[in-house]
Amino acid sequence: MNKIEHLGIAVRNLREAEAVFERLLGAGPYKRETVESERVTTSFFRMGESKVELLEATDPQSVIARYLERRGEGLHHVAFAVGDIRAEMQRLKQAGFTLLSDEPRAGADNKWVCFVHPKDCNGVLVELCQDRY
Amino acid sequence: MNKIEHLGIAVRNLREAEAVFERLLGAGPYKRETVESERVTTSFFRMGESKVELLEATDPQSVIARYLERRGEGLHHVAFAVGDIRAEMQRLKQAGFTLLSDEPRAGADNKWVCFVHPKDCNGVLVELCQDRY
Repeated sequence: MNKIEHLGIAVRNLREAEAVFERLLGAGPYKRETVESERVTTSFFRMGESKVELLEATDPQSVIARYLERRGEGLHHVAFAVGDIRAEMQRLKQAGFTLLSDEPRAGADNKWVCFVHPKDCNGVLVELCQDRY
Repeated sequence: MNKIEHLGIAVRNLREAEAVFERLLGAGPYKRETVESERVTTSFFRMGESKVELLEATDPQSVIARYLERRGEGLHHVAFAVGDIRAEMQRLKQAGFTLLSDEPRAGADNKWVCFVHPKDCNGVLVELCQDRY
């Protein structure tokens, strides 16, 4: 793992949250993208070598919608950039971490992604991210 | 704001959490520091231009202890690096954000810090950080 790729923030209303984070960070989002498989619409802000990702649910049964119901808005996950996601998944599995998928999945922003169970990371939902291109 | 300075994670047991994050991130912490004014002991891991900060309460009445009671372990705050913290505090105040102190305070890792109220940032506790030296 070589940097924080992005920090994911669960929000109820993407348009309103975009305005808040534009005021906070001093610059607007560089892209908005819907990830059908995850049932979210995401909005990305650049912050140095990392990004801030806002996530709004597109379906009341999605992971983000259920998270908002349970915990409210706020910090949802941290994603770390990796060079070889399969090797990193293998390393973490051998180190005793529970992965939420057996294979990398196609995530937002042209990434292969895999999540690590928060129960193994002191309550933190950790995402691994590898560039797809 | 020019980068994610660090990501703060609230943990119950710093020593155990350090071992978890060392396995997860592939390298150990570079420093441990107690901040008496905040009643926390912190542990820092490098991650690219950012850091991961683990926080353990040193007092059951501290902010971190109360957070753990209410929400459990997990992502607690995100800190952004700023060049001039007073100017940034002024800018945010004018933009309608509520700051949790009127003056910068001495934080961990040789920083001047100020927090922004999570109610103004979609539930995210935001910290501004300026180097003290």
